[in-house]
Amino acid sequence: MNPNTAHNQQESSPRDVPATGAATLAEIAREAGVSAPTVSKVLNGRADVAAATRLRVEELLHRHGYQRRRGNSQAAPLLDLVFHELESSWAMEVIRGVENVAREEGLSVVLSESAGRLSPGQSWVDGVLARRPTGVILVLSNLDAAQQAQLTSRDIPFVVLDPAGDSGEDVPAIGATNWHGGLAATRHLLELGHRRIAMISGPSGMMCSRARIAGYRAALETAGVVYEPSLIRSGDFHHEAGYAAGLELLRLPDRPTAVFTGNDLQALGLYAAARELGLRIPDDLSVVGFDDLPIARWVGPPLTTVRQPLTEMAEAAARLVCDLARGNRPSTLRLDLATQLVERSSTAPPPASVG
Amino acid sequence: MNPNTAHNQQESSPRDVPATGAATLAEIAREAGVSAPTVSKVLNGRADVAAATRLRVEELLHRHGYQRRRGNSQAAPLLDLVFHELESSWAMEVIRGVENVAREEGLSVVLSESAGRLSPGQSWVDGVLARRPTGVILVLSNLDAAQQAQLTSRDIPFVVLDPAGDSGEDVPAIGATNWHGGLAATRHLLELGHRRIAMISGPSGMMCSRARIAGYRAALETAGVVYEPSLIRSGDFHHEAGYAAGLELLRLPDRPTAVFTGNDLQALGLYAAARELGLRIPDDLSVVGFDDLPIARWVGPPLTTVRQPLTEMAEAAARLVCDLARGNRPSTLRLDLATQLVERSSTAPPPASVG
Repeated sequence: MNPNTAHNQQESSPRDVPATGAATLAEIAREAGVSAPTVSKVLNGRADVAAATRLRVEELLHRHGYQRRRGNSQAAPLLDLVFHELESSWAMEVIRGVENVAREEGLSVVLSESAGRLSPGQSWVDGVLARRPTGVILVLSNLDAAQQAQLTSRDIPFVVLDPAGDSGEDVPAIGATNWHGGLAATRHLLELGHRRIAMISGPSGMMCSRARIAGYRAALETAGVVYEPSLIRSGDFHHEAGYAAGLELLRLPDRPTAVFTGNDLQALGLYAAARELGLRIPDDLSVVGFDDLPIARWVGPPLTTVRQPLTEMAEAAARLVCDLARGNRPSTLRLDLATQLVERSSTAPPPASVG
Repeated sequence: MNPNTAHNQQESSPRDVPATGAATLAEIAREAGVSAPTVSKVLNGRADVAAATRLRVEELLHRHGYQRRRGNSQAAPLLDLVFHELESSWAMEVIRGVENVAREEGLSVVLSESAGRLSPGQSWVDGVLARRPTGVILVLSNLDAAQQAQLTSRDIPFVVLDPAGDSGEDVPAIGATNWHGGLAATRHLLELGHRRIAMISGPSGMMCSRARIAGYRAALETAGVVYEPSLIRSGDFHHEAGYAAGLELLRLPDRPTAVFTGNDLQALGLYAAARELGLRIPDDLSVVGFDDLPIARWVGPPLTTVRQPLTEMAEAAARLVCDLARGNRPSTLRLDLATQLVERSSTAPPPASVG
């Protein structure tokens, strides 16, 4: 076992290990057999270090839990904002919130897309290390453990917005009360008299989708309505998925009288499917969306939906990451903002109970 | 008159003026009575220079047409993208195009909003000088002459996307064939038999709006239909403006049978106004939009609109600015991409001529 590792700090001499318990840059350099400027280059994401050296230094930084001292770090006045995918006005609501806080803080926003992958690529991490932003916000995506370690060692804080996966307890994250949203949407339909209520959920691998399905199911079960897996479809949050799943559901012999869709775009896809089959909303079919994008007010009929405060969530994430960058440790690292049912004109009692 | 100015370069000694005809950094420093590192600080947007000194240096840089030598500039791998306002999926289409090219070029995109003003503020310019991006793309906004000079002296190229104002011939710009789009939209309605065709234009101060109105007018006049100013309303490209102008137009005693709206969002506002008044689209009213945002396909009925290739325009702007950054001088600095009418279900013959 190496006597310089953090595990053994009690046994090391005071000269080897600073008061904070972490190895210094010089110690990392000595152990790696390179110069201190070389460790510095690795820390700053510079390309002019041999790959093998870099890996060795990264490994030592990680093993020693090295963390660049705060105030030392000369962070650039940038906030990195990474999207799972840059699509639709959903992303625009988030961007607006981050921009609001960035402007207050005198920061500029660097925008990236992880091209549909759930964690951004290494070239993105290299860019972040080189430009040393004040903080990083990841939307519906996450960093793998190695990427987290790289950012932590450079003292670059990060926050996950609307976590897709089941990130650890120690990962700062801002979400929404998805379970309550699913519950409220389904209760609204139950109260109107619907019993045959379908759901077109988002991707089943995403936490937000699973929470919405669970809320839907809880509402049914507390109302004594049997949960029918045959009435559940899973989409990818896009219009086309809502359309395709909508056609399937509306062509069932005993078709549902109401559908809770996983988001607003899938609700619009369902609108198109209903139009194609000659079904009127809300007379023949009630629809509840999720998100409350601006478009929900604009479609005909205006969409009843569960408002997710995306801009406020983005503002909260940006404030949290700026707080962390200032060295503050908030009392809680995870926060779910409240969702709220917004009743418009796409829901009504089911046809059988009309008149 | 100062013997060091560019105007007088023939009269200056060879030692004072380098072969390129421009003053050196040392010469600027001498004339300003400061050290060369101070001029360097101003060039790099550093805050630690007295305001008066900074102004004097900026003025000399401008007067001498100083331009940092290419290759010397160590531009950061960033592209600055500035929006007039970050609203709706219009901006998302543009962001996607810029991201596509940025990814190819290994650049990250810094996003800013000029908060509704037609040129970004000085704090944005200071940020740009400090971070030294590879290039700048301005959307529906422009730089004032002083800002242009500041960027030029630092060798930071810029391109205007969809120029709002009447920018000079020497400003690189990517637009769309707005006049042809207005012409095609109106001709389509004329060919269906409409004669009473209204228009809800965008802001009359924007070049793109004026070109679309001119195209509309040209179509009417070549068809022998009188252009009636009372059938023209002007909005701000938002849904609410389309709704308000729509209500006005549809409540006219002799209401129009068709409306060409300045963009898709205003068309959706008009949809809402028509619904409110119990008018069916396209049976009672034909509507043509502009832009072809994804939402145009999703509304009921799907919107006939003029496609503006926003993503391709953004890609072209990003390629142009990267080209300029490499020191290439393209044969043309201005390019208008073609618009195209997309027929969907919101247009039909006028009610009177039906049956």
